Amino acid sequence: MRIDLRSDTVTKPTAAMMEAITKAEVGDDVYKEDPTVNKLEEKLAGMFGMDAALFFPTGSMANQAAIKLHTQPGEQLIADKYAHVYNYEGGGVSFNSGVSCKLLDGNRGMVTASQVEEAINPPDFYHSPLTSLVCLENTTNKGGGACYDVEEIIKIHLVCKKHNLGLHLDGARLWNALVAKNEDPKQYGEIFDTISVCLSKGLGSPMGSVLLGKQRFMDKAIRVRKVLGGGMRQIGFMAGAGLYAVENHISRLTEDHKKAKEIGALLKTLDFVTKVEPIETNIIIFNVNIDEQLFLKDMEENNVHFYSMGQGKLRLVTHYDYTYEMHERFLQLLQNYPVHSVLK
Amino acid sequence: MRIDLRSDTVTKPTAAMMEAITKAEVGDDVYKEDPTVNKLEEKLAGMFGMDAALFFPTGSMANQAAIKLHTQPGEQLIADKYAHVYNYEGGGVSFNSGVSCKLLDGNRGMVTASQVEEAINPPDFYHSPLTSLVCLENTTNKGGGACYDVEEIIKIHLVCKKHNLGLHLDGARLWNALVAKNEDPKQYGEIFDTISVCLSKGLGSPMGSVLLGKQRFMDKAIRVRKVLGGGMRQIGFMAGAGLYAVENHISRLTEDHKKAKEIGALLKTLDFVTKVEPIETNIIIFNVNIDEQLFLKDMEENNVHFYSMGQGKLRLVTHYDYTYEMHERFLQLLQNYPVHSVLK
Amino acid sequence: MRIDLRSDTVTKPTAAMMEAITKAEVGDDVYKEDPTVNKLEEKLAGMFGMDAALFFPTGSMANQAAIKLHTQPGEQLIADKYAHVYNYEGGGVSFNSGVSCKLLDGNRGMVTASQVEEAINPPDFYHSPLTSLVCLENTTNKGGGACYDVEEIIKIHLVCKKHNLGLHLDGARLWNALVAKNEDPKQYGEIFDTISVCLSKGLGSPMGSVLLGKQRFMDKAIRVRKVLGGGMRQIGFMAGAGLYAVENHISRLTEDHKKAKEIGALLKTLDFVTKVEPIETNIIIFNVNIDEQLFLKDMEENNVHFYSMGQGKLRLVTHYDYTYEMHERFLQLLQNYPVHSVLK
Amino acid sequence: MRIDLRSDTVTKPTAAMMEAITKAEVGDDVYKEDPTVNKLEEKLAGMFGMDAALFFPTGSMANQAAIKLHTQPGEQLIADKYAHVYNYEGGGVSFNSGVSCKLLDGNRGMVTASQVEEAINPPDFYHSPLTSLVCLENTTNKGGGACYDVEEIIKIHLVCKKHNLGLHLDGARLWNALVAKNEDPKQYGEIFDTISVCLSKGLGSPMGSVLLGKQRFMDKAIRVRKVLGGGMRQIGFMAGAGLYAVENHISRLTEDHKKAKEIGALLKTLDFVTKVEPIETNIIIFNVNIDEQLFLKDMEENNVHFYSMGQGKLRLVTHYDYTYEMHERFLQLLQNYPVHSVLK
Repeated sequence: MRIDLRSDTVTKPTAAMMEAITKAEVGDDVYKEDPTVNKLEEKLAGMFGMDAALFFPTGSMANQAAIKLHTQPGEQLIADKYAHVYNYEGGGVSFNSGVSCKLLDGNRGMVTASQVEEAINPPDFYHSPLTSLVCLENTTNKGGGACYDVEEIIKIHLVCKKHNLGLHLDGARLWNALVAKNEDPKQYGEIFDTISVCLSKGLGSPMGSVLLGKQRFMDKAIRVRKVLGGGMRQIGFMAGAGLYAVENHISRLTEDHKKAKEIGALLKTLDFVTKVEPIETNIIIFNVNIDEQLFLKDMEENNVHFYSMGQGKLRLVTHYDYTYEMHERFLQLLQNYPVHSVLK
Repeated sequence: MRIDLRSDTVTKPTAAMMEAITKAEVGDDVYKEDPTVNKLEEKLAGMFGMDAALFFPTGSMANQAAIKLHTQPGEQLIADKYAHVYNYEGGGVSFNSGVSCKLLDGNRGMVTASQVEEAINPPDFYHSPLTSLVCLENTTNKGGGACYDVEEIIKIHLVCKKHNLGLHLDGARLWNALVAKNEDPKQYGEIFDTISVCLSKGLGSPMGSVLLGKQRFMDKAIRVRKVLGGGMRQIGFMAGAGLYAVENHISRLTEDHKKAKEIGALLKTLDFVTKVEPIETNIIIFNVNIDEQLFLKDMEENNVHFYSMGQGKLRLVTHYDYTYEMHERFLQLLQNYPVHSVLK
Repeated sequence: MRIDLRSDTVTKPTAAMMEAITKAEVGDDVYKEDPTVNKLEEKLAGMFGMDAALFFPTGSMANQAAIKLHTQPGEQLIADKYAHVYNYEGGGVSFNSGVSCKLLDGNRGMVTASQVEEAINPPDFYHSPLTSLVCLENTTNKGGGACYDVEEIIKIHLVCKKHNLGLHLDGARLWNALVAKNEDPKQYGEIFDTISVCLSKGLGSPMGSVLLGKQRFMDKAIRVRKVLGGGMRQIGFMAGAGLYAVENHISRLTEDHKKAKEIGALLKTLDFVTKVEPIETNIIIFNVNIDEQLFLKDMEENNVHFYSMGQGKLRLVTHYDYTYEMHERFLQLLQNYPVHSVLK
Repeated sequence: MRIDLRSDTVTKPTAAMMEAITKAEVGDDVYKEDPTVNKLEEKLAGMFGMDAALFFPTGSMANQAAIKLHTQPGEQLIADKYAHVYNYEGGGVSFNSGVSCKLLDGNRGMVTASQVEEAINPPDFYHSPLTSLVCLENTTNKGGGACYDVEEIIKIHLVCKKHNLGLHLDGARLWNALVAKNEDPKQYGEIFDTISVCLSKGLGSPMGSVLLGKQRFMDKAIRVRKVLGGGMRQIGFMAGAGLYAVENHISRLTEDHKKAKEIGALLKTLDFVTKVEPIETNIIIFNVNIDEQLFLKDMEENNVHFYSMGQGKLRLVTHYDYTYEMHERFLQLLQNYPVHSVLK
């Protein structure tokens, strides 16, 4: 029994999702003739109350396309120092859009409206890049699955309106936030200009993300998807998995969150664990005072897999394929972890 | 019975391919843990005798990534004026790579070695862009499915070696050329630095292309795929369709070619057809002396669909889903086409 | 006595221009406090009846900045196949703006309104780049100093308005056209959205170009100049030379044109000259049936310098520093050129 | 008597420098035929013991070109959070090179070797950008003219060698560091791959910077200068000013430093000044506890000009045109500054 806690991206389709895949009606999505893709896009646009939606092969491409839709080369976006768009999209902000990042020292990946406002470059001082976009992430990945307080997001939205900045949400794990905070997607649709949501990760679909947005931003979205090479053909098979996931896998995220909190509660009781970051969704970040490489190796020998973030910090991510059986086994393993042997 | 001759991209999986999809073993391809993707990549690298292979969501992205791997911004590539990379990839050569195109006036999308050599900018004249890459297309799309004589390609390869230029093949329909000319893929692997091959189009898979190449070019391919947003997760379902197609759908392309030639033969006998370009594979380009929009409309009313290329030039593409039954019906329809009513 | 007919860029300031340089009042132009730069910009904006003007270190940068002001990455501009912006600006269209070129097969570097209209990509077909700009050149450099008929330019302007395209003029040698055709700069200011004019070349200033334009394009011009690294400090010394040149060196361009025509008239009588292109301004392009490298070498031995354009085509450019004395000597040299010795 | 302490960029040529300008022998530098430019380039390459040198219109362009020479789009450079290349070059790092910045929290604009080493992204983790360049600044502009300890720079150099990173020095005010620390330029030539030095600022030339570097980086420098639009014609007039400055204005920078320290010493005694940053060269950064806008206005009314950096922080820069007479007057003005009136 392999227990994979590296990421929620590793999930595989359930039998019911496989059926949705095989039964998906497809067409050529480059001609916008794939009925399942179209249905998924309509469904999500409706759910968030946004004007338009477009299917992308990956969340990275959905984010990168959004950044391109909001900016001109030479401009600057504001994001937290932990932002996925800055750290884990291969330098795409600069590569694809010629845009630089002003990174804020936020709290667990979340920034405040006043931090944002202070970071805006004066628009008439042409030596510094023109600030044109704010990117938020909810939940935060590197920030340990932290969820924004929507009141703060509204304040950031007002700062953006005041200074004529676009506002994009990297919603790779937005579903987790919606469930954890019991929020209405439509609220997000009102606040943001563009939102990317992921069908893989917590929802368990094999691949794909959808970019949602206001019409004036989405008008050129299909052009940007095309130029980045994201226009696929009979991709309705995969969109069908996504559609099934949206209809069936959202509310069950509470299970992943519950398991994550249980792991966190246990970790706090362990001697070799020095710190456990607050757990709001499905990500657990904790610190150990033992050799982390040895710890990871011991876990691997027990067929449990996860990653170090460096310097004694480790990350676990719960997900659909992390079953109760695995959960019990992992908790036991942690409980009995022979610290002495590691310290020897 | 809808007869869709717009493109070979419109095909849908057969029952056997659907089975390959559902039975595909999958994993997270971002971690390179998808066994089906890995198998497909190995299979194709082996088939062409090339060092490495990488799966991409689209042929456009595979081509664009290759161009990036060969060039620095400001440089120039040489291609035929009909080249897909210049005409139909959304301006990606400049957008993604900052590269310009020197377009040659080739024959049906095919250029000669001497044309290429004349088009190389002098490397020490820094006013003009540095020429660093030659892109060929085989078969040619806008050129009507024309196939290169491999002897000419070898000459172009020698020009590239002499002038230190990369040589990329847009092999969106390379399978058609291999079958039409009865050629060995390994020959192509020896000539080119990078080759993109498509799993959709003639092979009938729902999506996906594979970039093949020499190690020194492919070393950074996964970085480029990442930054363009092309790294998907459990995409083995789609790669499984591709693998099935590679194993089962190549030789049957002769059927598509035979049907295309039969259509061409009939077209030549029709009064309203002024010209039929040579037909070597599955694309038919012909000219009419009647109102092309009316002609297209009449055909659509008979549930036959294809496109105009403008100014009386029309294009048909045969493919797996264009059955013998459709073929007979379409030939009849053409045969009986009431020119008088169009001219009225 | 060195006779340099390679280009009109080789001229050196006259004594009077040197005085203008030394007497120029200067300030920090990055703060827009250089009175001479400001005066030059106002003078030229006024002369062309345009909203704003900005001084640039080079004509290439003025053109490249204009292209950036008109476009977004991935878009396409239309220009003649001989266009300087495509051929001789180091691939800058793609490097600086991520833009591709659709090149037209014009007449001596000049295109027609109908050619332009046919070259516009359909704006809703997102596979091809969005056409957003037309660049003309007047006089044409590679086209041999040809001057547009302003009626054709007006037609092109109407095509641009109809299709919502920007219209930029590379006016590196616009002064020559104005003098040759006896035209009013204000007419150009009405037609074009942006115009670059050069202070070097025919006008004889050491360096510098000025970009003129409508306010909505020029609003961001100083940002683009900054990011390209073109914002200089006490550059009023050089702008002073330019201002002097604008005030004193325009009408005398007729002399350069007269000399060019006299050279052309002689060339037509020579046995080894097979073709002389029409001469309208200060550029002479002609073909020889002798070994061009030997011819150039013989000329160099006589201290006459000019360039080959390849394949028996040669180019001469007259300018301020090409005196009557040099002119006579050069004509004599041509007249007596010992063809036999070359053919030996 | 206008006292301009906004920047050392505001200086105007002395009579002797004006003579150097008028007597400069010039040619077309695009053909590399300007003897004065060539002499300046040779002089500086020799002074720093570097392989090659190239004249640029601005320091921004010299820095931006260097960054381009070291990087490919998508890669990342490491710099201090105060770095001019990140803050004040219009977003050029991303615009011109498609490169992102990892900013370090250094001390007065200076970073340590261990900070640099920690900031390098793991080269085989393709999700994060590939780190390929470190940019230092000496003296630091936003850091208040701070000078690096050369021992730390050598350590950074070793980190770069170990990790195969390029090392560029933004030497906009390197002359000030050389004089303040009594260092040999050749030492810098040994450590860095490329160095930009400015002829304006402390040296008092009207414009221009020179990029120095190792051959393998400089090989393409003229191409990059061309594509950015920096190749000027008879620019030897301005290079002549630069050459004169290099030969005559370096050692006198001690005067600027002495005046700066005297201003700093006085500031420390003033009630309304809460902090004066260490003064090593010609930049003074200090904080006030009074309304800075009112203070600036009062100073302006006395014809003294300088800038606020925001939040009570102010900057003064001494330079050639800041005479002893001005110095005395400014010190008096500060001494007698009526704090009470400001606070009223």
